[in-house]
Amino acid sequence: MNPALTDWISRIKAPERQLEPQLRAHLDDLTKPLGSLGRLEEIALKLGLIQGQLELKTHSKRLYCFAGDHGVAFEGVSAFPREVTPQMVLNMLAGGAAINQLCQNAGADLKVVDMGVDFDFEPHPNLIQAKVAKGTQSFIQGPAMSQEDCEQALLAGIKLAEAAQADGVQLLGTGEMGIANTTPAAALFAAYLPCQPQEIVGRGTGVDDAGLARKIEVIKKGLELHQSALKDPAETLAALGGFEIAGIAGLVLGAAALKIPVVVDGFISSAGALAALKIASAAAEYLFFSHLSAEQGHRLFAETLGIKPLMDLDLRLGEGTGAALAFCLIEGAALCSNQMATFSGAKVSTKV
Amino acid sequence: MNPALTDWISRIKAPERQLEPQLRAHLDDLTKPLGSLGRLEEIALKLGLIQGQLELKTHSKRLYCFAGDHGVAFEGVSAFPREVTPQMVLNMLAGGAAINQLCQNAGADLKVVDMGVDFDFEPHPNLIQAKVAKGTQSFIQGPAMSQEDCEQALLAGIKLAEAAQADGVQLLGTGEMGIANTTPAAALFAAYLPCQPQEIVGRGTGVDDAGLARKIEVIKKGLELHQSALKDPAETLAALGGFEIAGIAGLVLGAAALKIPVVVDGFISSAGALAALKIASAAAEYLFFSHLSAEQGHRLFAETLGIKPLMDLDLRLGEGTGAALAFCLIEGAALCSNQMATFSGAKVSTKV
Repeated sequence: MNPALTDWISRIKAPERQLEPQLRAHLDDLTKPLGSLGRLEEIALKLGLIQGQLELKTHSKRLYCFAGDHGVAFEGVSAFPREVTPQMVLNMLAGGAAINQLCQNAGADLKVVDMGVDFDFEPHPNLIQAKVAKGTQSFIQGPAMSQEDCEQALLAGIKLAEAAQADGVQLLGTGEMGIANTTPAAALFAAYLPCQPQEIVGRGTGVDDAGLARKIEVIKKGLELHQSALKDPAETLAALGGFEIAGIAGLVLGAAALKIPVVVDGFISSAGALAALKIASAAAEYLFFSHLSAEQGHRLFAETLGIKPLMDLDLRLGEGTGAALAFCLIEGAALCSNQMATFSGAKVSTKV
Repeated sequence: MNPALTDWISRIKAPERQLEPQLRAHLDDLTKPLGSLGRLEEIALKLGLIQGQLELKTHSKRLYCFAGDHGVAFEGVSAFPREVTPQMVLNMLAGGAAINQLCQNAGADLKVVDMGVDFDFEPHPNLIQAKVAKGTQSFIQGPAMSQEDCEQALLAGIKLAEAAQADGVQLLGTGEMGIANTTPAAALFAAYLPCQPQEIVGRGTGVDDAGLARKIEVIKKGLELHQSALKDPAETLAALGGFEIAGIAGLVLGAAALKIPVVVDGFISSAGALAALKIASAAAEYLFFSHLSAEQGHRLFAETLGIKPLMDLDLRLGEGTGAALAFCLIEGAALCSNQMATFSGAKVSTKV
């Protein structure tokens, strides 16, 4: 593995827990019945441990939407044609996608990252150029990415975490755009969890029964072809993943090394996050899983890892839409922890 | 019944549905896979029907937090002493409660309404004086409120919907504060759903097993004492409810008559909303149920009415905290519907 990558991975440590009693005592002293803010208290505690302080910082938020094309798109696994990837990138740059509205709603900065789209984009202030190649190879013919290209994509994600830190970003979110990318995502889940392809594959943007059967077949073939790669998480990612998925994995690794919390979107973002966790399990402590995707396999992922996503809104759009919505909940939790009065301070009587 | 009240109730009609095909076609034309925004699309459709136009308006949001004291607080049914009601009202006016932070987070205006607190408040710009009496009577000794007082409380809630409309408010939220008010709320659910007291009663702000048993006992006695009132929803509300619960019911009725959408908070707000629905069932079309409360009976309420609240965050604080969080989701849904590009407009290819 690239020594720069090894170095970053070695820097990932779980947050220290010495602040935990103080954080819990603070939350318990806020003017509300004990524990009554439910999951908002869990969020505040996690943020406090990550940030290593009582004052939680969530004002500056950024969502990176990673885009990439996929060789498997030519295997008839998607309901939409492949040119939709660059079209949607342009739509995001023009402000017309769902993620633009939901980032605006959350007061979050949106950056679109070209990790591997089969298109030459003009420069744009909200577009980050990190193209490794113009799409992956079809993983039923060979590895989706070479190990070097995959590591380059991981390092690109790490660099974005560094850039975010330099810009004072306090809360990161992941999103993605890539026609056919539920197929590599499902293949990664099948390899990592592990599980049978048919347990994890869903209809993505809306394939019919024949498309669904093709997806399962393609993933079975891919798992068979790359059996020897499945022993190593980074090799698995290269063999079956995608540039945008590796970018997400890199962002998670970089953010964990830099102690920046990351809000993970749905099915595909979770595959990227899972790749990162297989590479460095301590990164889990820096992640918030925003929502349970309507893509059917996401529940199996969440249950296998013991994750309870914050919301369940039947979203299956990707782009980071669930993460952007969760920004609002996380910022709300932080505001409660930072600004609520305490029982002693507010002269409110405690429990009898 | 007071003729003014009867008049308001007669004005409540379900939204007309002639715009529905146009709203659905618009949502389907947005640059995303069909239906992939899940419940956000359901929200947008409902808002569009209520507001009678494609352009959804949610920018101006207000949450009314209704406060009241309860005679049953003297029956040992709450973990907190009764003086916490005015203390928490003062805390809200000072900006120190959870609801202050979550309204700030959502960009919503917060008004605290004194419906019946056993305390004399100084005037404050965010306090609305609508006190009917200094707390209800214990409903195991007689009706909690006289029919006249209850109608006054309903009309006060209706007036607040009118005031909101005059101020250009586009989205309303409900909240409440009232020590012991999970007991009248549970009594109302038991009467309206109907169900057995033990199915609906929970620990509120945290009573122990003995407190829980007392709550059940008190509700059983109340239901028995007021059996003849249970035939009429407004009489039931007077017999078992509370001033803040009647205020919420009034707000729902007024907002429905004026076609303003209302976001309902948790357990107690749902009891107020249910009273309104029993009085005028068409009001249901104007309601968004924000979250499933951790107060155990709330699930029974939701299941009985076939409601799927937007979130499940283990909140059991009240004040309107879940409604304020849901404001963010609803505004996000509106922004998506209003501002996303369309397939034709954005030159994005549709499904193959």
